[in-house]
Formats: sequence, structure tokens, C-alpha cells
Amino acid sequence: MRTIFYISDRTAITAEALGHCLLVQFADLNFKEITMPYVDSREKIEAVVERINQVARREAKKPIIFTTLVSPMIRQIINNCNALVLDPFDHFLGQLEAELHTKPLHEKGRSRRISDLDKYDNRIGAINFTLAHDDGAATNYDQCDIILTGISRCGKTPTCLYLALQFGIRAANFPLTEDMLNGETLPCLLRAHIDKLFGLTSDILRLHSVRSLRRPGSDYASRDQCRFELRAAEGLFRLHNIPYVNTSTHSIEEIASRIVHDRKLKRKYAHGG
Amino acid sequence: MRTIFYISDRTAITAEALGHCLLVQFADLNFKEITMPYVDSREKIEAVVERINQVARREAKKPIIFTTLVSPMIRQIINNCNALVLDPFDHFLGQLEAELHTKPLHEKGRSRRISDLDKYDNRIGAINFTLAHDDGAATNYDQCDIILTGISRCGKTPTCLYLALQFGIRAANFPLTEDMLNGETLPCLLRAHIDKLFGLTSDILRLHSVRSLRRPGSDYASRDQCRFELRAAEGLFRLHNIPYVNTSTHSIEEIASRIVHDRKLKRKYAHGG
Repeated sequence: MRTIFYISDRTAITAEALGHCLLVQFADLNFKEITMPYVDSREKIEAVVERINQVARREAKKPIIFTTLVSPMIRQIINNCNALVLDPFDHFLGQLEAELHTKPLHEKGRSRRISDLDKYDNRIGAINFTLAHDDGAATNYDQCDIILTGISRCGKTPTCLYLALQFGIRAANFPLTEDMLNGETLPCLLRAHIDKLFGLTSDILRLHSVRSLRRPGSDYASRDQCRFELRAAEGLFRLHNIPYVNTSTHSIEEIASRIVHDRKLKRKYAHGG
Repeated sequence: MRTIFYISDRTAITAEALGHCLLVQFADLNFKEITMPYVDSREKIEAVVERINQVARREAKKPIIFTTLVSPMIRQIINNCNALVLDPFDHFLGQLEAELHTKPLHEKGRSRRISDLDKYDNRIGAINFTLAHDDGAATNYDQCDIILTGISRCGKTPTCLYLALQFGIRAANFPLTEDMLNGETLPCLLRAHIDKLFGLTSDILRLHSVRSLRRPGSDYASRDQCRFELRAAEGLFRLHNIPYVNTSTHSIEEIASRIVHDRKLKRKYAHGG
């Protein structure tokens, strides 16, 4: 067991992402993860260093620290603790400064600029749109960027919400119902927007288990029903050349990124934290 | 104008986060951002390098590349392109290997493990809970982790969805209505869960502008009404010692991280991509 600290003067989201990305390369080991955001003063960093040094003594192993601390003064303090400190600012900021011929802002860079994503219309607008267009509720698809479709419990709603929150994408979703599957036909509404469609599927056991949580012992959750619906849905996707992804083996991040990539969607960019 | 590439054999989310975090230090410059996920073969990386070199020639400036490529072979190819390549794997993987006395998995590490966050109940369960408990709909708060409260259009729903998606937190939200504000009193339902409450506020101009998008020229959107509601809501939060944050000056990531931190919520961790 090894203790990992994610330390930032802001949200620590970047430090976490960086750490997770690297630590998955050592997947056989066990890690205990601790996130410490908003470490933005000398007092706070000194308390953090004390805690790190305690862990190092107790576990007789150096903790591993991922940091995105902006202030050089605070970075210097943490570099003296009894830990392996992995700091992308130390490594990359100097290289960026040399290439861009511009001094970094340091402390001042902490203050917030409104990113493209954070502009109200882009992000909150996309979330409101997505909630209003969940599960076939509203269907004015001219203004939407993507329409996810698939049978019940394949992840349409969570994926749409992720696309809206993370990328500012207006994502609708529309359920494939049994009459469409039996008739092997897509409704006109979807055929009119065929270039915006993206299919989600699952596998039989996963779908059976997820539907069983919702309605235990029902026909809806039975393996036979899951098998029939999955095969029919994939048949429809292939018939209409709709790209699709099996959500049972991918995280929401992976599914959403795949959709943005395959459908060449325009994304809004956030700032790091 | 400088072109930035985010390149990954998976989602590129980590490369983007790292880049944004560093580039905000050079906020006075203009960047054009291009994300290239799923670069996972020699053919794909060679096409990417060709594109980068074209950009370098056309703009007569080196593009800046943030990568999280796992394969050493692919990393070697990109390191030879005409760009500033900033690669946390190159910098940090060796240090981690030495400290952990374990070889990294390289290619094999790309295959997915189910993270704590991705376990169905944690993430999808939290999203379903959050949707069911939006805007005071369901109010069985014993199972929830946090209840956001505030007046209309302060960001309760987007923040709840972010908490659920990003951290697997079961986040309910409950609106403060005019009778509560006039009566200067919280409903029993909320007082019974006072330790789970977190308040969201905004500022008058922002709230006025957001409400005007929804109902232009209405009393609801008027500055006087916004002023009254904001003051009354903040009064209630102070009266009941409910922590609160002004959402008009923070991104959703910042608000959510602040809530997790201040309320000491237990978060689930994702893997990097």
C-alpha cells in the first residue's frame, strides 16, 4: 500500500487526472488516494507537508505527490518534504516559457478567466438542452449536436449529461422501443437526422443485471428479452450505418470521447484546475 | 496564435487537463486547440506527425504537444516531430518505476480496469439518484450525500450532475421559494438534514441576465426581485450556519470541488484516460 496525494491551489482535478493516468501503469499495486485542493497559503502548505511527513514515517515509504501548485514559493516548500514529488509545473513551465517567449503569470494565473466552456450559454445551455431532450421528451433536433439512441439501460442519459457538462455539446437521446425493434425500422424523426445519430449497446449479462436492479424478475430484465433487444438494435444500427459503441466495457469518459471523435463534434474547452 | 495538440491513445482528457492548467499561465496569448484521441497505431501516429509538421511549416512556429501516449514506440515517433513535445510519461514514469520498484505495464496498461467510480452503483446510481432528487422532486434524503439549496438559476442542477458524474456523489437539490424567503425560515425537511446542506448564491446582475434569458421582462427576472431573493437566501444561510458559494464567479468544477472539500464528502476515484 502506498499513499498518493493530489495537491493543488485550485480544484486538484488536473493533478488527479495526471496521477490516475500514470498509476494505472502500476495497476497491480494498491494505492490510497488523498486529494487536497485549495492549498493556497504558506500555513496550508506547511500543514500539508507535516501530514505527508507523518505518513512517510508511519508507512516507512515515501508518499507520492502529484501537484499543480502555481506559486513558486509554495512549490519550493513541498519539494522539501519526504516524498516523491511529481510536478508538471517544474518540468514544463520553463520549456513553455522559452518556446512562447512569454513569462508565466504565476500567482496571477490563479485568478479565473471565463473559458469557452464556462460561457453560460455553452455549458449551462447544453445541460438544459440535454435535460429537456432526455429520453425522447423534446424532439426539436435541428439545434442539437448529437442524438444518442439505444434500448433501455444502455447509458444514454449519463453519456448525454457528460457530453453537455464536459464539452458543452447539446446531446439529445431517444429510446429504441419494442415496436421499432420488432418492425426493424427507425422512426421518421430519427431518419431525418441520421447524421446526428450514435448508437449505444451493451452485452446481455450486463444489461440483464442492470435491468434486474430496476425491475427484478421482470420480462423486461430477462436474458431472452435483453438478447432480443440487443440483437435487434445492433441490426438497426448496421442497416442505417449508424456508428455505435458497447457501453458495458467502457467508462463514460471513453464513450463520450469516442462519440466526439467519430462524429467530429465541435467541443468547447475548459480551463485546468 | 499558436497551435496546441492534445494527443493520446485513449480519451486525451488528461492531456487536455494538463495543457489547460499550464496554458492558463500564458493567458494573454491566443491558442488554437486540437484534440486527437485514440492514436494507437504506427499508421495513426505517422499521420499525426505529418499534420503537426505541416502546421509547423505553415505557421512558422513550433506547435506545442501535450501527450499521454503509453507505448514507448509511439512516443519515440512523436518525439521526432517539429514541435515542443511535453510528455508526462517521459518525465514521470521512470521516477515512479524507481520509487515503486515495479515495471510499468506499457501497452497492457491501456486495457481498462473498472475503477471505483465506474462501478455501476457508484456512478450511474449517483446520476439516477441525482436526477430523481432534482429541484425537490424526491426528498428521501437519508441516502443522499449532499443537498444543494438556493434560489432559482443559481446552478443547483448542473452542480449536482457534476458531483454525481465526476465523484459518484448522491447530490439532491431543493429550491428556496418565496414563502421561505419571506418567512425567513427553512422547511423542516431541510432543517432535519442541516449537516448535508450547502448553499448556492449568485450576484444580482448575473442572476438578472440569466433569468432574463428564461423569462424576459418578468418580475421573476427583475433586478429588484433578484436582489431581494439573493439577500434573503444569504440571510438564511448565515442564520443556519450553512456554508455557501457564489456561483457567478466560479466554474462548475470549482464549485463542486469546493463543496466536496468543505463538506468533507467521500469521493470515488476514476482512472485517467
